[in-house]
Amino acid sequence: MVASGICGTDIKSLDSKELAQFCPIIMGHEGTGIVESVGEGVSTVKTGDKVIILCLPQCGECNTCLNSKNNICKEARLSGSHQTSEGNSRITCKGKTVYQFITTGTFSEYIVIKEISVAKIDEGALLEKVCIIGCGFATGFGAALNSAKVTPGSTCAVFGLGGVGLSVIIGCKAAGAAKIIAVDINKDKFAKAKTVGATECIDPRDFEKPIQTVLFDMMNGGADFCFEVTGNPETVAPALASCHKDHGVCVIVGSIGSWVQINLSSELFFSGRTVKGSVLGGWKTKDEIPKLVSDCMTKKFNLDPLITHTLSLDKVNEAIQLMKNGQCIRCVLLP
Amino acid sequence: MVASGICGTDIKSLDSKELAQFCPIIMGHEGTGIVESVGEGVSTVKTGDKVIILCLPQCGECNTCLNSKNNICKEARLSGSHQTSEGNSRITCKGKTVYQFITTGTFSEYIVIKEISVAKIDEGALLEKVCIIGCGFATGFGAALNSAKVTPGSTCAVFGLGGVGLSVIIGCKAAGAAKIIAVDINKDKFAKAKTVGATECIDPRDFEKPIQTVLFDMMNGGADFCFEVTGNPETVAPALASCHKDHGVCVIVGSIGSWVQINLSSELFFSGRTVKGSVLGGWKTKDEIPKLVSDCMTKKFNLDPLITHTLSLDKVNEAIQLMKNGQCIRCVLLP
Repeated sequence: MVASGICGTDIKSLDSKELAQFCPIIMGHEGTGIVESVGEGVSTVKTGDKVIILCLPQCGECNTCLNSKNNICKEARLSGSHQTSEGNSRITCKGKTVYQFITTGTFSEYIVIKEISVAKIDEGALLEKVCIIGCGFATGFGAALNSAKVTPGSTCAVFGLGGVGLSVIIGCKAAGAAKIIAVDINKDKFAKAKTVGATECIDPRDFEKPIQTVLFDMMNGGADFCFEVTGNPETVAPALASCHKDHGVCVIVGSIGSWVQINLSSELFFSGRTVKGSVLGGWKTKDEIPKLVSDCMTKKFNLDPLITHTLSLDKVNEAIQLMKNGQCIRCVLLP
Repeated sequence: MVASGICGTDIKSLDSKELAQFCPIIMGHEGTGIVESVGEGVSTVKTGDKVIILCLPQCGECNTCLNSKNNICKEARLSGSHQTSEGNSRITCKGKTVYQFITTGTFSEYIVIKEISVAKIDEGALLEKVCIIGCGFATGFGAALNSAKVTPGSTCAVFGLGGVGLSVIIGCKAAGAAKIIAVDINKDKFAKAKTVGATECIDPRDFEKPIQTVLFDMMNGGADFCFEVTGNPETVAPALASCHKDHGVCVIVGSIGSWVQINLSSELFFSGRTVKGSVLGGWKTKDEIPKLVSDCMTKKFNLDPLITHTLSLDKVNEAIQLMKNGQCIRCVLLP
């Protein structure tokens, strides 16, 4: 492993009860490295290749992989299980199983991973930078391009300005949106949002009116596309209400806890609004993530504003604290 | 007026508190007739034309009408108001205002209506039959074709087998769906559902498992498209859960009461499902409803199974009772 980003899912999971049954565990699920060796039958990567880790694998053979509309390969482990399909883990320490977070575990000097969870990337890629494409960036960028299918000249609103929310903004801009309104209750995040493409930034607490009324007025009847990226189930209803009543599309990008109830008024749907989920930006990972890496190299988008901190792997706890405190957007760890 | 269908919205509204403030009112909002006379400046219809009433108008000038993605013209009155834009009503009786339901009021020998709420249809159209295209049929048929965009070879599930639900089935079949499962707790409706295109019919009460589990098994991981047409807010969650977890689309077609809360688990969205509303099947009414009438005449679909009763207008109360008792699918009134 050469570099690994810290994603919000790592932070959220650390505090979850579900993780306890898999400890000890190596955290981290987005990263880049160089292939040390490969097992028998591996054909898509070879020793010395620069690679990116795919926390959502693409086996290429299951019903999902064979369906052009889907990207959650049957081998995916996204629902709180960290057991690999062939056994609990591929790593032991002094004879004891050490689990790999989402069967990856990138906060490590070495990783043992299936061929379907790794993809060869361009020889010239800067591994310390493109590592965040593996999850956070791809999730936000793809939510705009693939899940919402943002159209040129459209209006967008993005709720939540963490690393994924900023990646959504980059996606909206790349798709040619005319107006991108960034929404957060932390004004410290506004400057960065503008850097990556937000046309306006607002704090809902600055208004007496509900946020959906504010956005209705700012965007001539509501946003064409809204993105809920706060991870707060209570933000889904105002985000949906902020969409244009007839054709507005709201994408839930934030990882909201499992089985949390989302309460939505029937009125929000009556006139034709849409709400949908999105997983890893809808990308077919093994096919498409390497293309995103190439697009980054040809400057089709710029990841620099997202990576605010780079620390050595032994400072992982410090890095996690920075993330928890909201002091950094993306911290990259270097083993 | 030559013919008027009785739609579920008429029945529901009759029992609503909101209607009381608009009484006396002429009910009915789907119908056909022949133009008796036109006012100054009217250019799209003339005396003697066969016409269909558009309960959702298309003014052709507002932001909605100018946007290809929308169909809720700013002149629409769908939210419980029956006041016309130019005054309360165009009809009086002995000097007293008589409101027109949704500004139409088709249960009548004569109707006074704006040009934007009426469309010329083919001279050869059977008015007693095509009247139901104006609301019920267009709503269900369009929900499948326009809102869900059902694809050839896909799997569909339709919850609720009233006139609109059956029209959804006709739409799914027209779109080339491979499997159409009809769901209702009234088995008496199954034969008709099969007549119009359902490949299988099930009653959720015949299974110990939840309906979403039953449909998951029947459709290899869930339906590509699900339609909630019962009007029951509690059916939205199982309908959404019955969709394929990654790419499934659930369309809420049933008119669920205003501001009723719909509770949906975050888990239903996490993997990528979509839920959306649909109004009058997404049709641009003045442009497209006449084309549906022509399609009916060329037998692209068959309305006969939907019209189970035809009564004279003076039997309107009897007809409403038949609808309430579930004894008829669509009753057509003949003034």
